[in-house]
Amino acid sequence: MTAPPVAIVAGGGALPLEIARAARAAGREAVLFRIEGEADAEPGDIPHHTLGYGRIGRFFELLAEHGVEEICFAGTIARRPHFSGIAGDLGTIRRLPRILKVLAGGDDGVIRKVLRLFEEEGYRVVGIAEIAPALLAGTGPHGRHHPRAEDRADIALGARFLAAAAPFDVGQAVVAVAGRIVAVEAAEGTDAMLERAASLRRRGRFLAGGRQGVLVKLPKTGQDRRTDLPVVGLATVERAEAAGLAGLALAAGGTLFVERGAALARADGAGLFVEGIEAEAPA
Amino acid sequence: MTAPPVAIVAGGGALPLEIARAARAAGREAVLFRIEGEADAEPGDIPHHTLGYGRIGRFFELLAEHGVEEICFAGTIARRPHFSGIAGDLGTIRRLPRILKVLAGGDDGVIRKVLRLFEEEGYRVVGIAEIAPALLAGTGPHGRHHPRAEDRADIALGARFLAAAAPFDVGQAVVAVAGRIVAVEAAEGTDAMLERAASLRRRGRFLAGGRQGVLVKLPKTGQDRRTDLPVVGLATVERAEAAGLAGLALAAGGTLFVERGAALARADGAGLFVEGIEAEAPA
Repeated sequence: MTAPPVAIVAGGGALPLEIARAARAAGREAVLFRIEGEADAEPGDIPHHTLGYGRIGRFFELLAEHGVEEICFAGTIARRPHFSGIAGDLGTIRRLPRILKVLAGGDDGVIRKVLRLFEEEGYRVVGIAEIAPALLAGTGPHGRHHPRAEDRADIALGARFLAAAAPFDVGQAVVAVAGRIVAVEAAEGTDAMLERAASLRRRGRFLAGGRQGVLVKLPKTGQDRRTDLPVVGLATVERAEAAGLAGLALAAGGTLFVERGAALARADGAGLFVEGIEAEAPA
Repeated sequence: MTAPPVAIVAGGGALPLEIARAARAAGREAVLFRIEGEADAEPGDIPHHTLGYGRIGRFFELLAEHGVEEICFAGTIARRPHFSGIAGDLGTIRRLPRILKVLAGGDDGVIRKVLRLFEEEGYRVVGIAEIAPALLAGTGPHGRHHPRAEDRADIALGARFLAAAAPFDVGQAVVAVAGRIVAVEAAEGTDAMLERAASLRRRGRFLAGGRQGVLVKLPKTGQDRRTDLPVVGLATVERAEAAGLAGLALAAGGTLFVERGAALARADGAGLFVEGIEAEAPA
């Protein structure tokens, strides 16, 4: 007997399709539910549907048609849905009071409430680590380069800062350079923070010699790892390179490292390390 | 007997001149030492000199000529001096080994070392609060508008975050909106952080209804208040307004509130509060 396909609700980025392929490689079929206006992964040969936020009734119908029992959420959401985008089909309207309650508060709050919504409909929400564990960062160096002692000091500083900031449901990343936290991620996301670090460096707003400093990216304390693992890919390496950083530090087993071949080729070529660190935030 | 004039080493912004005027209004003459490439205050009728980083020998000569015993540092420094800008006059070169040691590490570290440098030359470094206490924010509302209950919740959240982040020598400000920290200041400064918050709001990256959210700006834990008090002025109010915020929360007695007439006229007109809060960070 074959396991029923897993549904992947796909936001932006390459991740949803990578998960679908990794799941298939591990013997499990997947169906992509692309969120209109967010998903940009080309589905290729993976079965898929594209639905707007107002098609939640249709979404549950399709889940039933495919015999889906498990749902995995992946990819970025650039915009939170506004009311006007939600007032959609009948199945949406029926769920509207609960959905509106979800659209308030910090990210973690929203995500937990969304999970509960699906669980109460009888579905199991599964993490990426469960259906595509090969995508998680491992421990130690991933590419050719290793952090020096000064890089390890910056990594430790960044990890301590993120541990202190974690209870506040802020971002999951900082840039630490030569003993100083020069950029902290909040609602803008990691890519925008790295671009800021590059701009600050160009304008001489912090001291750095040669390739120096690290991006430290970790899961938040108490974060539900089924839905909101930090993701690093080729664009992250390119932006870290542009910011003059010496490398990236990722939580081993707690960060998704996607587009790995291309990202490591780039890091190796530019002299950047990609280090998996043991930095489990207390649950 | 008249007290000797106080020297004000002037970086960018309106603050240095405001201090000179406030000092004069309180019966104390001031001499402005404008840092070349940084100072932009028009000195008007206040005695002044303009010196590059390489003119440190000349600076100490002028201090002696004016009979100065006390020095106050004020204004922003957009660029840290590089070695090429320092290798200057004889008095600079004599002090070079110590100056170079200063140009490393976090902001707080640098500032403490600069203070010690001057103290060892026989000068007393005085705080703005000492020579121009009228410039400090007071307690409670400064303008016409008052924070609502939801604004007070955002203020408390922002203050808690800054207390947690303070040991890391990061920025002194956050934007909290509807229970969420949406922007954290590090090396980019408060104005750039507010511009980011405005951009995030325009792009729907966080939920806010009407004027909502606050800028919370406090001194860092253990910060030397003689040199690095947070400063808020007209541009801060304008940027908070552009970000759709409901108001600003400043540490009473611990934040400089400059250009106060113009800033409050703007805040009053736009419906923003400017609230002085009791948020003394432990020393």
